[in-house]
Amino acid sequence: MADIRSEIQQLGEFGLIDRIAQKFSRVHAASIKTIGDDAAVIAGSEEVTLVSTDMLLEGVHFDLSYMPLQHLGYKAVVVNVSDIAAMNGTPKQIVMGLGLSNRFSVEAIDLFYEGVRAACANYGVDLVGGDTTSSASGLVISVTIIGTAPREKVTYRSGAKVNDILCVTGDLGAAYMGLQVLEREKQVFLTNPDMQPALERYEYMVGRQLKPEARMDIVHELADLNIVPTSMIDISDGLASELLHLARQSEVGIKIFEDKIPIDNTAYETAIEFKMDPITAALNGGEDYELLFTIGPSDYEKVKNHADIHFIGHLHDNANQHVMISKQGTVVPLKAQGWDHFGR
Amino acid sequence: MADIRSEIQQLGEFGLIDRIAQKFSRVHAASIKTIGDDAAVIAGSEEVTLVSTDMLLEGVHFDLSYMPLQHLGYKAVVVNVSDIAAMNGTPKQIVMGLGLSNRFSVEAIDLFYEGVRAACANYGVDLVGGDTTSSASGLVISVTIIGTAPREKVTYRSGAKVNDILCVTGDLGAAYMGLQVLEREKQVFLTNPDMQPALERYEYMVGRQLKPEARMDIVHELADLNIVPTSMIDISDGLASELLHLARQSEVGIKIFEDKIPIDNTAYETAIEFKMDPITAALNGGEDYELLFTIGPSDYEKVKNHADIHFIGHLHDNANQHVMISKQGTVVPLKAQGWDHFGR
Repeated sequence: MADIRSEIQQLGEFGLIDRIAQKFSRVHAASIKTIGDDAAVIAGSEEVTLVSTDMLLEGVHFDLSYMPLQHLGYKAVVVNVSDIAAMNGTPKQIVMGLGLSNRFSVEAIDLFYEGVRAACANYGVDLVGGDTTSSASGLVISVTIIGTAPREKVTYRSGAKVNDILCVTGDLGAAYMGLQVLEREKQVFLTNPDMQPALERYEYMVGRQLKPEARMDIVHELADLNIVPTSMIDISDGLASELLHLARQSEVGIKIFEDKIPIDNTAYETAIEFKMDPITAALNGGEDYELLFTIGPSDYEKVKNHADIHFIGHLHDNANQHVMISKQGTVVPLKAQGWDHFGR
Repeated sequence: MADIRSEIQQLGEFGLIDRIAQKFSRVHAASIKTIGDDAAVIAGSEEVTLVSTDMLLEGVHFDLSYMPLQHLGYKAVVVNVSDIAAMNGTPKQIVMGLGLSNRFSVEAIDLFYEGVRAACANYGVDLVGGDTTSSASGLVISVTIIGTAPREKVTYRSGAKVNDILCVTGDLGAAYMGLQVLEREKQVFLTNPDMQPALERYEYMVGRQLKPEARMDIVHELADLNIVPTSMIDISDGLASELLHLARQSEVGIKIFEDKIPIDNTAYETAIEFKMDPITAALNGGEDYELLFTIGPSDYEKVKNHADIHFIGHLHDNANQHVMISKQGTVVPLKAQGWDHFGR
């Protein structure tokens, strides 16, 4: 955090909006009018428009005691870009709602938008508008993203067919184990504020939690290979939850193999250290923002040697049977544990 | 509130999303894919796309002790439709983020979405997606709206010219005085819970506060009259604040006349009752969601007899001089007091 502290009310509405607007230069000529009017103006095109929104609430989705504000700004954009990636689209514009309390200084807001700016630059996205207001309690972030795609290339959750192959990008489990490490270090710190956190060993996992990336690279590679996945979803709530989404909307059954699930090595070891089953981190942990997608068997040859795409199972015609074959060969029913906010 | 109470976690994620989706039928063929995927899909067109977002936070923007949930759902849509109206556009789709705590039952959420549905039906808008999550504290609502307009008909805040005429629709001050009445009744109720609120006399003002409407009728009438305003903005923060927005972005000076400002009669009388200057409610009250716009002098003949458009002043070339001529003929500098959230 910067040493200087300026109060938001000193800037005023014009000042704050100008300060935000100055950080962003336009990527798309189609972003005709960006920040500063009642609505942003985006020129039309021949493609379909994709729209997605995500809300991030302090105390539910992030903890500012270990989440640096610039990472939070970055992540708020990335989780939305990931939704456009999951539709096989190209992200174009975002609008951002921000609810702030007086405990945030102007410098703190600058850090946040520095992260937003970095993510916008990395993914070629224009910030075209928003709403900044005070919040009576915690920090509230809402991002809506707009993307485009040729209509015939959009990948829905509902398009998977029997015998299609289930593919997962990258590795799973690290973001969740990173969160466990951060929570443990926070407790240590609260007990003994002189302790410095020892995060070196856990750097990859912590990075996955604090500064995730969206797999636009995979979207581009699939296009280069002339593959349109039959269905696609991003892994935000955990692999099991996303598999059940695909199964439900495509009306197919799931069969995956435990030994094919790409668990990150350090996450595996850290799960053991935390006395957890590593597969739980991969199946139910979430927040890795990798892509889960399905391809027809005829496309398998094109991607079978891809270093970052893993083939974890396939679809079958019993739409009520969703199972994992364990390393021991036993049949385990798949259950979602991702959406448990309201049950807590 | 309904007598039955069902817990959200009994529904589960699928159940809650299905329950919401069932309430909404599609208005626009261009809304190809609505709720239930990573992003909504909207077919492209020849027109420009307008995007706006608004965040409504409990304790800042609304008080559930007197705001019925169905009105809140209605208002959350309307304030966004009003932004599209202010661009001279047509609203088409919304996405809605909702942060809820366990104190809200399924029936309460139903009431909220009943209001959303009613507003969507009234304004011809499709709810095409959203994000529903738990909130650690109050109710959090974020709406992003997408609209369209022919590129040459979009009205920016920056288009006003010297000698243009300042126009205001409807009446001002009632929404703010409605809020004062509701706050007073709440205090009476807190002191003596057996007291029934006496709101009959204040019905219009309370309605303006709890269930505002967006002036899409004016947008359509201006189109019929072949008028494209040179600039336009909706009155959400108060007339003075919006006038200064237009002046700043158009680089012109403002001159308005107190006796031309359309203050609602009951708001006028209630302001006196509250020992307030009625002009303050109109200038700084906000939330009336009327339109402030400018027209070139040559368009004046077309609208001069319109019953619901009022001509409150004009623009001049001293971009640093923004004044109101009082009823007594004195010159009063215009000041914005709308954006004071952070100063409270």
